[in-house]
Amino acid sequence: MHFWFVCNKCGKESPFNLKESKCDCGGTLLVEYDLERVSKTLTKERLKNRSTSMWRYSELLPVENEKNIVSLGEGWTPLVRMNQAEEKYPVKKLWIKREEQNPTGSFKSRGFSSAISIANEYGVSKVAVNSNGNAASALAAYASYAGMESHVFVPKDCPGLIVDECVQYGASTFLVNGLIHDAGKIIEDGKQEQGWYNVGTLKEPGRAEGKKTMGLELAEQFNWNLPDVIVYPTGGGSGVIGIWNAFQQLKQLGFIEGDLPRMVSVQELGCDPIVSAMENDSDFNSQTENVISKPTGMRVPNPPDGDLIVSILRETNGTAVTVSKEEIEQAQKTNGAQGISSSPEGAATWAGFTRLVEQGWIKEDDEVVLFNTSHAMKYLPWEATGTPTIKTYEDWKKVSENVLI
Amino acid sequence: MHFWFVCNKCGKESPFNLKESKCDCGGTLLVEYDLERVSKTLTKERLKNRSTSMWRYSELLPVENEKNIVSLGEGWTPLVRMNQAEEKYPVKKLWIKREEQNPTGSFKSRGFSSAISIANEYGVSKVAVNSNGNAASALAAYASYAGMESHVFVPKDCPGLIVDECVQYGASTFLVNGLIHDAGKIIEDGKQEQGWYNVGTLKEPGRAEGKKTMGLELAEQFNWNLPDVIVYPTGGGSGVIGIWNAFQQLKQLGFIEGDLPRMVSVQELGCDPIVSAMENDSDFNSQTENVISKPTGMRVPNPPDGDLIVSILRETNGTAVTVSKEEIEQAQKTNGAQGISSSPEGAATWAGFTRLVEQGWIKEDDEVVLFNTSHAMKYLPWEATGTPTIKTYEDWKKVSENVLI
Repeated sequence: MHFWFVCNKCGKESPFNLKESKCDCGGTLLVEYDLERVSKTLTKERLKNRSTSMWRYSELLPVENEKNIVSLGEGWTPLVRMNQAEEKYPVKKLWIKREEQNPTGSFKSRGFSSAISIANEYGVSKVAVNSNGNAASALAAYASYAGMESHVFVPKDCPGLIVDECVQYGASTFLVNGLIHDAGKIIEDGKQEQGWYNVGTLKEPGRAEGKKTMGLELAEQFNWNLPDVIVYPTGGGSGVIGIWNAFQQLKQLGFIEGDLPRMVSVQELGCDPIVSAMENDSDFNSQTENVISKPTGMRVPNPPDGDLIVSILRETNGTAVTVSKEEIEQAQKTNGAQGISSSPEGAATWAGFTRLVEQGWIKEDDEVVLFNTSHAMKYLPWEATGTPTIKTYEDWKKVSENVLI
Repeated sequence: MHFWFVCNKCGKESPFNLKESKCDCGGTLLVEYDLERVSKTLTKERLKNRSTSMWRYSELLPVENEKNIVSLGEGWTPLVRMNQAEEKYPVKKLWIKREEQNPTGSFKSRGFSSAISIANEYGVSKVAVNSNGNAASALAAYASYAGMESHVFVPKDCPGLIVDECVQYGASTFLVNGLIHDAGKIIEDGKQEQGWYNVGTLKEPGRAEGKKTMGLELAEQFNWNLPDVIVYPTGGGSGVIGIWNAFQQLKQLGFIEGDLPRMVSVQELGCDPIVSAMENDSDFNSQTENVISKPTGMRVPNPPDGDLIVSILRETNGTAVTVSKEEIEQAQKTNGAQGISSSPEGAATWAGFTRLVEQGWIKEDDEVVLFNTSHAMKYLPWEATGTPTIKTYEDWKKVSENVLI
């Protein structure tokens, strides 16, 4: 196998395994590749002739046999230059990376194309995920396309349209009376008995690897000269980790050089543990109370890799910023009026951008990229139709028995 | 100017003009290009180094100065191979072309990128469109990005989510008590007084030209060897016309050769004038009564270019097929269960495909492409929030006066 795990904390190497992503020491297991082998086939020149999906970088994704790839046309999303905004704000160049143009209407398509491809390679037939929304519908779509059974568990205040999307994609779908980690506990409690493969954030290595393609792609779209600042909405953080990891690998391959872009995490007021650690100049701690933000992809009070996210922001001279619900709503309108449909998470990057411009943190000669992670329309105040609500794995067993009878 | 009009019926040439698309003889004005000049810069080899938006084919789009291009990242949408379905149906190869991955969630992005670029080149500042939905939100997005004022008029039973999208993109949005041509009449009645540039179907040359890129792109993605059958949902018909026109130009340029794909139009029961003409082997006639189908992009009882659509289907040995509301709903489920989110129009192509397989019209050795024109989620039974309903231009004047006061 030309890829294996390396712990980002203790440095220990171990064989690649589809059911791990954390080291015994508490560090994160990143996938490392035989870059000498990779560099024989992955060249800037050859890339020009490849398919425009994220699988153009297949040497840097942990799938051995190309026939196992499960692709619905994810990646190679457009970068749109925001000309009107450049005239209004003191910034050199501004782009929005349109991740909402992925197959399931969000950047989550990338992580699940990769995770489900790995699952496919290992013959997995039943997959499960906990999510605040877009990850659930992405899992559902990729699992169905691959012919796998999917089980999704989302907080009951998750956007109803996304819940209905999961049902549309054929997933067995449940609302959970609790937050995203309560939903995750149901999967952990049931996975042995039910044979579920848990595809939750950082429960397996595929999702972070898939998101890495955002960084690979950004570098290639910028002709291997990276922008100065990247603004990303942060919940579980695998987006930030993936992009940073991409840049590390591209440096080692000699595709890029120099300083990395300053990475910025945006969180919502009411759930911002990354911002707390950055502002207090302290170690990362989960947020244990007062989680009062809206149910978006940013609402993750205890991201399994908070340490790593914080260290990436520090290492790149980045920062983290909290924005309010009202600022997000205003940013959705502003983006709409410039022709861009933004989810709350995507709009949060616009709100973070304007805040950092005001603070003088983003400067006149900066080239800035904002990630628009999903469409506005997925977040209508629509009520999901007929999806049952549960609290525990025991509840699930009862409900699913009833469904079966 | 290296492009001009040619009438498809009488053959008369005339200068390109942004406000025309019909000849005095009743024929359609197609845009013709100086192909000798085009072929100097547009080559198969050069295409490999171009941007992956529809503007990679800029020599075949009627914009003179590249700085006038209004692009939000439209085109170069994925072609997904439907492996599971290929095992179930007697067909050689089956793909879905994922037009829902365009910037505004539908294929309409292409037509408006082109139409608004032309408007931009001519200094237009106010644009208006009548639409059953997705054209309206696409106009709104492109106009806002270009800094133009937009006015959209949609039948009042148009999907509410799309209506709200228009508002989100900053368009002045009105529901109309009537069908799409009633909405069009309001624009025609008001355009002089209000200075609106009418971007309705085949009122100007840009939209059909933009849709042409679906054909250019399909040919390139198939490495210049076209599939056997193309199935397309048909309302106004500019998609079918655009794809066919693309193939004509590619033939003249020597990029493709041989028979064209058999083109198939799918319509919904209750509004199928194209199918009537094909089945009766007669001239095209508008449907004047019993328009009872759902408000989708296929509901156009009197497409301005019905003649041309019918002649394209005949010329390519194609056909037209009517599917019911129930078949469309079932096809949405089937597509969902294979990981594809389909609007009613997109799902209609699946329903048409299965019907034509049953009839033996699609054969075992056929390679077939279905166009999925938009996302399922746009068609939730959601009520638009607070958009006024009108019937005539006089109504509009009263309502907009009130709004202004």
